[in-house]
Amino acid sequence: MESWPPGGSGPAEAGRRLRDLRGADLAASASLLSGAGAEAGCSAPAVAAVLPAGGSGERMGVPTPKQFCPILERPLISYTLQALERVSWIKDIVVAVTGENMEAMKCIIQRYQHKGISLVESGVTRHRSIFNGLKALAEDQPNCRLSKPEVVIIHDAVRPFVEEDVLLKVVTAAKEHGHNACEVFTCPEDGHLGFHVLAVVNNAAVNMEAAGAIRPLVSTVISPSVDGCLDHSLERARHRASEMPQAFLFDVIYEAYQQCSDYDLEFGTECLHLALKYCHIKAKLIEGSPDLWKVTYKRDLYAAESIIKERISQQICVVMDTKEDEEHVGHRLEEMLKNELNHVKVTSGRDLQQIILEQCYNFVRVNVMTSDFEETQKLLNMLEESNLSILYPVVVISVQFLDYESVPFGQKMENLMQIREFAKQVKKRNILLYGLLVYYPQDEQKLQESLRHGATIIAALIKERNSGLIGQLLVA
Amino acid sequence: MESWPPGGSGPAEAGRRLRDLRGADLAASASLLSGAGAEAGCSAPAVAAVLPAGGSGERMGVPTPKQFCPILERPLISYTLQALERVSWIKDIVVAVTGENMEAMKCIIQRYQHKGISLVESGVTRHRSIFNGLKALAEDQPNCRLSKPEVVIIHDAVRPFVEEDVLLKVVTAAKEHGHNACEVFTCPEDGHLGFHVLAVVNNAAVNMEAAGAIRPLVSTVISPSVDGCLDHSLERARHRASEMPQAFLFDVIYEAYQQCSDYDLEFGTECLHLALKYCHIKAKLIEGSPDLWKVTYKRDLYAAESIIKERISQQICVVMDTKEDEEHVGHRLEEMLKNELNHVKVTSGRDLQQIILEQCYNFVRVNVMTSDFEETQKLLNMLEESNLSILYPVVVISVQFLDYESVPFGQKMENLMQIREFAKQVKKRNILLYGLLVYYPQDEQKLQESLRHGATIIAALIKERNSGLIGQLLVA
Repeated sequence: MESWPPGGSGPAEAGRRLRDLRGADLAASASLLSGAGAEAGCSAPAVAAVLPAGGSGERMGVPTPKQFCPILERPLISYTLQALERVSWIKDIVVAVTGENMEAMKCIIQRYQHKGISLVESGVTRHRSIFNGLKALAEDQPNCRLSKPEVVIIHDAVRPFVEEDVLLKVVTAAKEHGHNACEVFTCPEDGHLGFHVLAVVNNAAVNMEAAGAIRPLVSTVISPSVDGCLDHSLERARHRASEMPQAFLFDVIYEAYQQCSDYDLEFGTECLHLALKYCHIKAKLIEGSPDLWKVTYKRDLYAAESIIKERISQQICVVMDTKEDEEHVGHRLEEMLKNELNHVKVTSGRDLQQIILEQCYNFVRVNVMTSDFEETQKLLNMLEESNLSILYPVVVISVQFLDYESVPFGQKMENLMQIREFAKQVKKRNILLYGLLVYYPQDEQKLQESLRHGATIIAALIKERNSGLIGQLLVA
Repeated sequence: MESWPPGGSGPAEAGRRLRDLRGADLAASASLLSGAGAEAGCSAPAVAAVLPAGGSGERMGVPTPKQFCPILERPLISYTLQALERVSWIKDIVVAVTGENMEAMKCIIQRYQHKGISLVESGVTRHRSIFNGLKALAEDQPNCRLSKPEVVIIHDAVRPFVEEDVLLKVVTAAKEHGHNACEVFTCPEDGHLGFHVLAVVNNAAVNMEAAGAIRPLVSTVISPSVDGCLDHSLERARHRASEMPQAFLFDVIYEAYQQCSDYDLEFGTECLHLALKYCHIKAKLIEGSPDLWKVTYKRDLYAAESIIKERISQQICVVMDTKEDEEHVGHRLEEMLKNELNHVKVTSGRDLQQIILEQCYNFVRVNVMTSDFEETQKLLNMLEESNLSILYPVVVISVQFLDYESVPFGQKMENLMQIREFAKQVKKRNILLYGLLVYYPQDEQKLQESLRHGATIIAALIKERNSGLIGQLLVA
């Protein structure tokens, strides 16, 4: 059986992983045995996620609720769904949206081809929305189309950068109940998450049934008095911000929501608190990464857009005519890109299908043998067929070289202006096409200069992904 | 005597302002009298600011401390200094930096022409840095070059968007001591902040000598137990994040820092707490705007850059040849910009000197009569002389119109390529020059289309301020 994460399944490895997950103190007292009554092997406990998305976005200061605000023309919530659905062991995702936004949400799911999503109507508060999501997953409800999961993740629609790593950590911690420590793996047959029970821990305090991500506080938290003055301030080091995701044994959190008061549902903000108050469980706190932050204000949308742009600009694929030697100017441009753009992976486009599969969103098509757009057109067709641009705008830069002294510059440019029409066409498919004409003089130093300028322009176009400049023919 | 804010100085107006500042309940019990022993008239109490800037930027995950990270090529701290120094009634700004960064800080002050800044060496913690800043302002220190202020503002180097409004609110609240309510004004002679004592409030509880900005909590705050589990969560509505700026009577906060323990200086994070603990004063909490947030992570730098770009893109000045009638294509482009760009103020550049004084950072030079860059060159010279681009990159777009059918397109473009050289030259002065060629056909509908495309390109260039694309000739 394949263990997860890959790379080790022996007892020593498992022990190390146990330490990683539960802390050194705990691991020291843990013996590497399968516990009595434990689920062993590929028991495939179902994991589902609930995403409350009924918020009105008051704090953003814009009329669109923040989860529907566009980032690179795609609504924020679609990025969050993408982050959850790429995790193979999350079976169902239940999204709670207002009746008003139900149709819009269906369109988003269809347009961005999200899978395994169920919609329920949100409540007037976050807790009520989560409760509605849980009800949809509970088997005791009439017309329930979903099967009850063992563990449920609660996440926010406005935290798009959640990684599998932290999801796994909260789920694992929540599953560590009945005094047993677990090892996690993904089932090779169906990608479900499995747990090997590794150890019986002789510590009655270890009885997790919930877990949540936390972060250090950025500001000191204070308590105001009734007259608007400082009553007291909290020691920053002793407190944490409770973030998302959180995970719960489904029965535990569902019970907590059924038991809790109207006051809780109306004014509460913390799911872990409900589980603690009504089910008396222990909730493990997991340090999350800064990327878990919640998109709350307009500035957070700006930050999210910059992060997404940065992430999809990490790889550039350079495609050129075949049969060119190493000294060729196309290769020299590739070398220049490698030298000038730190932190960017520059790939030769020899196996384009593979590179597209690996989700590279930036292509430089170097045309040396031809002076038309035939080869660029082939690349564009391939990209259109691949559906790569459904989720992110793909940048294609068509490069031509020109020696001003031998070919009249103006005439060449005139021929190349047809790129404007191509660009308009492919923009409809979320492909941003630009042209780049690189000066190719005989003088070596001047050539170096124009290659460097070319690399700068390519970097600028990829970084900004500016749809206002598509179809332009830039000159290096 | 001129009152501040402008627009009213009678008792009714003062009463209204009092209510605004102190809440309706307080104002109801306040009588509009000058208090006994009050400072009346232009007493010009000095206000200074202390800016701890000794942080190492650990959380940012980059080697440069965050206050020195560049935004549009200018260090973050320079934006914060700019925000403080434009407030006429702040006399001195004391910045605490590490010995290591002292020279870099001096260069920043010189390069960006900051005024009224004094540097002191920072301590190993934030509190120690603030204490060093206060010592430099205290008159009891040897070699003190500064005069002791009555009120001191403490702010963070990494909160660049602080507005005069909130600074005034915290200073006013801190000054509301000795049971008196104050009205604030700026002294017409020297721009100092003055206080009229307006009312003796019969409420012993009102004895502010400190005030600080707060914000609602974005996440629930929790307290972890020693074993890393949830101990309890705090009710979000009853707590606030303590932000900056804060203001104090100088003697009060200086006394607090002199009295406080090494533990406080080492591990404390809250100045209001020190004032409360050691000087038993009341600290007024003032609701701040979301823009007060602290640049902490890399994403915050992205957000700050986007906010700054947005702010300097709010106004575009269109400059054209004189003696052109309303039907002229330049005017039509101006109209198109007005229609297409919501929220952007499009100004005619009739009084350029005035527009430059008003800090417009975007210029469109429409050339119809001429086909060279003579007029653009004049504009560039004027901008270079104005020093407008010291703080922000200024965008200049030189527009030419062309009827492809009557003039050979290529030839025209070739002439215009000289813009590349101009662009290189003015880039050294932080001016970003681009060229735009707008198709000017006889057909009315096509003309509309190319004007609209021109407006889109202008908007894209201004929004992104991409220095990688300077000197390019774009075609609409």
